[in-house]
Amino acid sequence: MKLTLELAEKIAAAAIQKASEIGVPMNIAIVDEGANLKSFHRMDNAWLGSVDISIKKAKTARFFDMNTGEIGKLSQPGQPLFGIEHSNGGLISFPGGVVLKSGDEIIGAIGVSGGSVEQDHEVASAGTSAI
Amino acid sequence: MKLTLELAEKIAAAAIQKASEIGVPMNIAIVDEGANLKSFHRMDNAWLGSVDISIKKAKTARFFDMNTGEIGKLSQPGQPLFGIEHSNGGLISFPGGVVLKSGDEIIGAIGVSGGSVEQDHEVASAGTSAI
Amino acid sequence: MKLTLELAEKIAAAAIQKASEIGVPMNIAIVDEGANLKSFHRMDNAWLGSVDISIKKAKTARFFDMNTGEIGKLSQPGQPLFGIEHSNGGLISFPGGVVLKSGDEIIGAIGVSGGSVEQDHEVASAGTSAI
Amino acid sequence: MKLTLELAEKIAAAAIQKASEIGVPMNIAIVDEGANLKSFHRMDNAWLGSVDISIKKAKTARFFDMNTGEIGKLSQPGQPLFGIEHSNGGLISFPGGVVLKSGDEIIGAIGVSGGSVEQDHEVASAGTSAI
Repeated sequence: MKLTLELAEKIAAAAIQKASEIGVPMNIAIVDEGANLKSFHRMDNAWLGSVDISIKKAKTARFFDMNTGEIGKLSQPGQPLFGIEHSNGGLISFPGGVVLKSGDEIIGAIGVSGGSVEQDHEVASAGTSAI
Repeated sequence: MKLTLELAEKIAAAAIQKASEIGVPMNIAIVDEGANLKSFHRMDNAWLGSVDISIKKAKTARFFDMNTGEIGKLSQPGQPLFGIEHSNGGLISFPGGVVLKSGDEIIGAIGVSGGSVEQDHEVASAGTSAI
Repeated sequence: MKLTLELAEKIAAAAIQKASEIGVPMNIAIVDEGANLKSFHRMDNAWLGSVDISIKKAKTARFFDMNTGEIGKLSQPGQPLFGIEHSNGGLISFPGGVVLKSGDEIIGAIGVSGGSVEQDHEVASAGTSAI
Repeated sequence: MKLTLELAEKIAAAAIQKASEIGVPMNIAIVDEGANLKSFHRMDNAWLGSVDISIKKAKTARFFDMNTGEIGKLSQPGQPLFGIEHSNGGLISFPGGVVLKSGDEIIGAIGVSGGSVEQDHEVASAGTSAI
């Protein structure tokens, strides 16, 4: 299955609804199978610095086909991937980037930034439920 | 007037409809008053290289409060602004970036990329009609 | 309220006066609501490397609407935002960046660099008292 | 003679006064002998994209100890310095960058951006008259 713009918009809408429910304005980026940006939405009053972070979270998740928080565990001082954030023009390795799957097939990723990392992950996960 | 996400989505929808009518899949980026990305949509089968171009067109239009094609006339060899594209991390100075206005007030800009520059400009202009 | 150049100059003057009182030459950057540079002053004999740091501190504070030292607590190894400095072309997450507010409204941020982080924060805070 | 902050502020004030007289809001950057930023002012309603351009003009003028328009003549297609703008993280080679001199000694440079290149150069030149 391909990540169409129609599907990306459904995913973004589900994420925005969750963000509205928890009362935290978010930046929401979605990339496709090729890790190229498909859609982006900045909710009103969401952090400006999270534009770039949400996009980098989505790319990071698709770059390594795992949620960004998993990479962050491996990139701590003393861990095997320490410093990986220096690659690819900058990665973000804390939670909020989640792989988008259709069954077992990875079709892209969503990156969310604007709240605590737990909130970011919750909103990103809500987006995936729209697939 | 502030460029809300709701308004940005209306502008993007009007641009997407025009792109569909002329049968050219487009990348559509919208920035706010501060030249920060507000929304982005890549239509299915639109050029991947136009993700960055559409965003740069929107920023360029807001950076100088004029449509990008106007800057391009001035940045040709021998013209007054030759080489301006080297600033601001890269500008795009051919048509497709259009200022968003509410009356006389500039509230942001839209950048479109995916077809000929005439088509890009036509689709961006269609977006502005939604304000 | 908009951050005018007149107001930015008052803020910078208050910061420079405090820096003079404590005898530490400083770099002082001010950004507006859109995180775009509004004014910059490098006092005589202030560190050259702090030109960029002061600008990044101001941007970082406005990017996340909090003082830079708060972000630094969260970006330590093992903390939730470890590695956030890799975003937005480079952030600075130690003290010296302070949000500028008019009542509850955020109108920009000031970034100060040139002394200890405590001194930087003190001078930035002195700047805010001019609003 | 060293370019003190006091002198830089006098130069900036003279430039701002000229910009006000001709009714064009400008970005005004001043660098010192080491081509490092000393002061910057963005007048209200001046172009956002000219923040970077004014700084690059000031640096370019000091990098080569000549006004930026002189470099632009040499960087046209077919001329000896074609493409020089790719160096130093991006140069700006059209008018508006002017060397600051005390007698025969170069003490820095001023870069102005926000109007036509003739206006930019006029305002930069007005700044130099304050030395």
